[in-house]
Amino acid sequence: MVTRIAILGAGRIGQVHARAVAGNRQAELVAIADALPEAAAALAATFGARVSDIGAIAADAGVDAVIICTPTDTHADLIEMFAHAGKAIFCEKPIDLDRARVAACLQVVADTGTPLMVGFNRRFDPHFRAVQQAVAAGRIGAVEQVVITSRDPAPPPLSYIAHSGGIFRDMTIHDFDMARFLLGQEIVSVQAMASVLVDPDIGAEGDFDTASVLMQAASGAQVVIANSRRATYGYDQRIEVHGADGMLQAQNQREADIVLANGQGFTAPVLHDFFMTRYLAAYAAEIAAFITALNDGTEMPVTGADGLRALDIAEAAVASVQTGSVVRL
Amino acid sequence: MVTRIAILGAGRIGQVHARAVAGNRQAELVAIADALPEAAAALAATFGARVSDIGAIAADAGVDAVIICTPTDTHADLIEMFAHAGKAIFCEKPIDLDRARVAACLQVVADTGTPLMVGFNRRFDPHFRAVQQAVAAGRIGAVEQVVITSRDPAPPPLSYIAHSGGIFRDMTIHDFDMARFLLGQEIVSVQAMASVLVDPDIGAEGDFDTASVLMQAASGAQVVIANSRRATYGYDQRIEVHGADGMLQAQNQREADIVLANGQGFTAPVLHDFFMTRYLAAYAAEIAAFITALNDGTEMPVTGADGLRALDIAEAAVASVQTGSVVRL
Amino acid sequence: MVTRIAILGAGRIGQVHARAVAGNRQAELVAIADALPEAAAALAATFGARVSDIGAIAADAGVDAVIICTPTDTHADLIEMFAHAGKAIFCEKPIDLDRARVAACLQVVADTGTPLMVGFNRRFDPHFRAVQQAVAAGRIGAVEQVVITSRDPAPPPLSYIAHSGGIFRDMTIHDFDMARFLLGQEIVSVQAMASVLVDPDIGAEGDFDTASVLMQAASGAQVVIANSRRATYGYDQRIEVHGADGMLQAQNQREADIVLANGQGFTAPVLHDFFMTRYLAAYAAEIAAFITALNDGTEMPVTGADGLRALDIAEAAVASVQTGSVVRL
Amino acid sequence: MVTRIAILGAGRIGQVHARAVAGNRQAELVAIADALPEAAAALAATFGARVSDIGAIAADAGVDAVIICTPTDTHADLIEMFAHAGKAIFCEKPIDLDRARVAACLQVVADTGTPLMVGFNRRFDPHFRAVQQAVAAGRIGAVEQVVITSRDPAPPPLSYIAHSGGIFRDMTIHDFDMARFLLGQEIVSVQAMASVLVDPDIGAEGDFDTASVLMQAASGAQVVIANSRRATYGYDQRIEVHGADGMLQAQNQREADIVLANGQGFTAPVLHDFFMTRYLAAYAAEIAAFITALNDGTEMPVTGADGLRALDIAEAAVASVQTGSVVRL
Repeated sequence: MVTRIAILGAGRIGQVHARAVAGNRQAELVAIADALPEAAAALAATFGARVSDIGAIAADAGVDAVIICTPTDTHADLIEMFAHAGKAIFCEKPIDLDRARVAACLQVVADTGTPLMVGFNRRFDPHFRAVQQAVAAGRIGAVEQVVITSRDPAPPPLSYIAHSGGIFRDMTIHDFDMARFLLGQEIVSVQAMASVLVDPDIGAEGDFDTASVLMQAASGAQVVIANSRRATYGYDQRIEVHGADGMLQAQNQREADIVLANGQGFTAPVLHDFFMTRYLAAYAAEIAAFITALNDGTEMPVTGADGLRALDIAEAAVASVQTGSVVRL
Repeated sequence: MVTRIAILGAGRIGQVHARAVAGNRQAELVAIADALPEAAAALAATFGARVSDIGAIAADAGVDAVIICTPTDTHADLIEMFAHAGKAIFCEKPIDLDRARVAACLQVVADTGTPLMVGFNRRFDPHFRAVQQAVAAGRIGAVEQVVITSRDPAPPPLSYIAHSGGIFRDMTIHDFDMARFLLGQEIVSVQAMASVLVDPDIGAEGDFDTASVLMQAASGAQVVIANSRRATYGYDQRIEVHGADGMLQAQNQREADIVLANGQGFTAPVLHDFFMTRYLAAYAAEIAAFITALNDGTEMPVTGADGLRALDIAEAAVASVQTGSVVRL
Repeated sequence: MVTRIAILGAGRIGQVHARAVAGNRQAELVAIADALPEAAAALAATFGARVSDIGAIAADAGVDAVIICTPTDTHADLIEMFAHAGKAIFCEKPIDLDRARVAACLQVVADTGTPLMVGFNRRFDPHFRAVQQAVAAGRIGAVEQVVITSRDPAPPPLSYIAHSGGIFRDMTIHDFDMARFLLGQEIVSVQAMASVLVDPDIGAEGDFDTASVLMQAASGAQVVIANSRRATYGYDQRIEVHGADGMLQAQNQREADIVLANGQGFTAPVLHDFFMTRYLAAYAAEIAAFITALNDGTEMPVTGADGLRALDIAEAAVASVQTGSVVRL
Repeated sequence: MVTRIAILGAGRIGQVHARAVAGNRQAELVAIADALPEAAAALAATFGARVSDIGAIAADAGVDAVIICTPTDTHADLIEMFAHAGKAIFCEKPIDLDRARVAACLQVVADTGTPLMVGFNRRFDPHFRAVQQAVAAGRIGAVEQVVITSRDPAPPPLSYIAHSGGIFRDMTIHDFDMARFLLGQEIVSVQAMASVLVDPDIGAEGDFDTASVLMQAASGAQVVIANSRRATYGYDQRIEVHGADGMLQAQNQREADIVLANGQGFTAPVLHDFFMTRYLAAYAAEIAAFITALNDGTEMPVTGADGLRALDIAEAAVASVQTGSVVRL
């Protein structure tokens, strides 16, 4: 069975998902909607889809599922609208920056029985997934410490910062989800440190650009996260899991894995420039997992509850920075 | 413009190319032919193409180009047939195991003005290509020594060995082409050593399973090649280029780039299991380059002459093993 | 000029220092004292020194300097005794587990004008030192985040744990000093998390075996430390410094830097088994730096104040674990 | 028992050995001789030895063994002289550039029953040794291919080239010995290629600066050697051994094992600048092995016969370059 998919939002992440859908033989990209008609038209033309609008897509019996890539403040409304319209939904994280709004939205999803998957793409990276599978298979015994490094190449525009919900809800949220994914259990306490070291304008927006977090899981396992909005050498994405019987690591990735040696030393190229290339395989696997779960009628691999839990941790991190104390969840 | 492509031969490499064509937005996979109707049908069904036969494809105005993935001994005949039929041709290496037959075939190609590309896929590997581009850009100055390591995970079936033309024409031929690609110049002398160390049955076929080759290029630059039909740790594919001003290396690749550390040490997984996964990106880029050259009307990135030259070097290597002497080209 | 040195304490670390002194051409190892006469005799015999006792060494005009390697609870008394005796002093960390006792002892050192160096050996590791020098030379611009990984292969005996002062004063103290060394500035706040995950008997002693720490420096730079008393794969010692213009890393070291590749993957040996081999070069460089500073009359490269500051941070970490809050220094 | 050692020749390699002797607790460095009195005096002063001359050392009952570090053309005469004088002998490679002279010298050694060790230092490198031990222990099964990379940072002075015996006798000879060491068996055939690519003045001396060699061992195993007198990135010394069951590698080493990452990429420092630092541990282990064999009365770990065999291979390589053919040994 081929799943007929519409993409809402033809921006950067919409383009990434359009490519993943087009490359998936169980899916067909049928329609694109965007507030900017030219953006929708360009993306539709590239992949042989038609331009449409949100209302028409909701009413279209020829659309089985939607991928929501619009601005964050529209996510919850769109999820509810398409839940009522009976479409399966893939929504980019976060569902909303407000916990209560997320909870209300997930209630609609539950009431309508709509399949909903939230876009934590890193779970589908082949390297991180291999680490998670080895941990789950008991290769390192009981987990004792998880160390996550996540550094963006450069800060987003200040206009983005202003509506991002802050570094913990926007950026570290991926690491919070990764910690839960790797541990296979819940986080019970958080303490965080956040600073403005990269750009004072980010501080002027009330946000931070450098953050470190310590967390404890239900089992007692510790989690350490190091974040920055700046990494001159590319998109730094590493994980390390220590257990009673060993350690698992996934190191950084680069486009061309070569080395130039000369009088200046041995130089490998910078890392991937950002998530569109670093997580190319992850995005394809993520959409494939969404479609497989739809076709098989199995539980979505990343649920609304996962989105909510990561948001809860982000809020705890914010509170910890404000109070200087551990926050229990 | 979309290039309409037929694939001749639905075996392992035909499947690899079908996938590359299907994933290319400038191409359409329209027909599949194979001596085994079920093989053709299965591949056609996977990618939404129709089953056809060679004669019908040659006569079909709806086919712009063919990709020849049939057994080696059919290549030259098919190239001539489709050259006369006015189809652009991509042919897997080698054109033929007999030099005179290759030359005659290329004459037909030249006379008909047919675009012909030969499948030396490794030129399109992103890592090797990055090395070649850095060499060509002068990053290491004049090249002095090229070192190529190429080891298959395991020998092919004896039935394959029997019709392969021998290790130099079948396996090392890729390294001969890689040397020419990296050097940007011709090979002028060859000396080779070949042994049966892996499987005496290979020796009984008159072939070898382990080979080392020294070559000299027109500039005086040296080339060193180490080959084996066995590598317990996966498909070993490395290059190293030394120049007056530095050195460039492309190391091995693996599926999941992780490390498990425990009391036994630090263990990374084995390498790719063979060319279908190791050179996945290379095959896609190769077909893309074929289509781009067709659309742009530019010279094919790998020509019949390239195939002929690599075969000449292979024959020189065979002669060197037989005589124990350097063979000049 | 050759510095005549006596070693107090012929245990594991005394042996390490004896070797460093014996290998240093500006020094002569003249005497060994130990509560166990056989231990002193064995070490003296190995390096051609004489057996003596603490009182005799203090009175001996033929001894220029002492290296204190006795149990921690004797350090402060011995420092004071040898300060009054006019000997230069190298003392293993810590001076004492009690802050007030350290301060009193350092007052005696100041009053007598005795040269005193404290043994933070990791500052002299060639790899860590190269990172520190590159940071100090501005190679990565203003430091934003320091990440220190420090994991022992296995917990010490419980009898040691009982008198160790706890994981922060005994183990993390090296990382506190490393952070100060790399940053070239003081730590102003600490928050810590500590758990018993390796051995419940360590918890029964009131100590922890797994710890993570976040700190902030005067400049605002962040420090992240991950510690464990267990690493099945050897002695894990890594540092990473992120700055505005780049990042510097020193990775792990092993005895034999080889790789075995086979069907199980690519395996490098485990790391050094512990500090005696991992920091062999560091110990030699440390003693050389002590002797050079003595001969040149320059300031000791690691001072009593450095020991005191690291202890202050350790106490702040303990307090943070107890209160669940950030502790300002 | 302490072995009393005299060093003949206070040049670069004499200094290396003096340091190794001084650091060895089973040895005492008693005398230094050199044609240049100031050189002898400087080295003697550094290590507390006395200045002497060759005749006096031969006659000195207080000298047990000599280390010959004089120019190559004096080696055979000195070996014979000290063999007759009843001193144990460690001689830097080569014994002589002329095969007949070596054979005659070794006859004197045999007749006098003198312990003689030849200085193939690389056998004692801890990394290469670990590879050899793993091979010998059967970790990779029967050896199929050995690949040795050996590149000097820069050519020696032309005055040195003129008396070096040529690249095969001077430089590749280490790789010939390494191949025998790793294989544990003899080389039976050699084919070689040699070029002047680095400096035409080397060619004017009748020598080469770039060489590649293929060899076959008695078992049929192949050996591949790549040499150059130039490596802009430091002293390139690598080995790789392929067997039926796996592969063993020892990669390059550097002084400070750090990485600097920034917009230019990830840069590790250049390799060791040359043998004095790269093989520091090897030289110490080599001298220790000499002394241990003397004390234990066991066979020397590297014998005169080893020196002769490596020279035989070098001569075969020269002949192969001249004839363009395989040379059987």
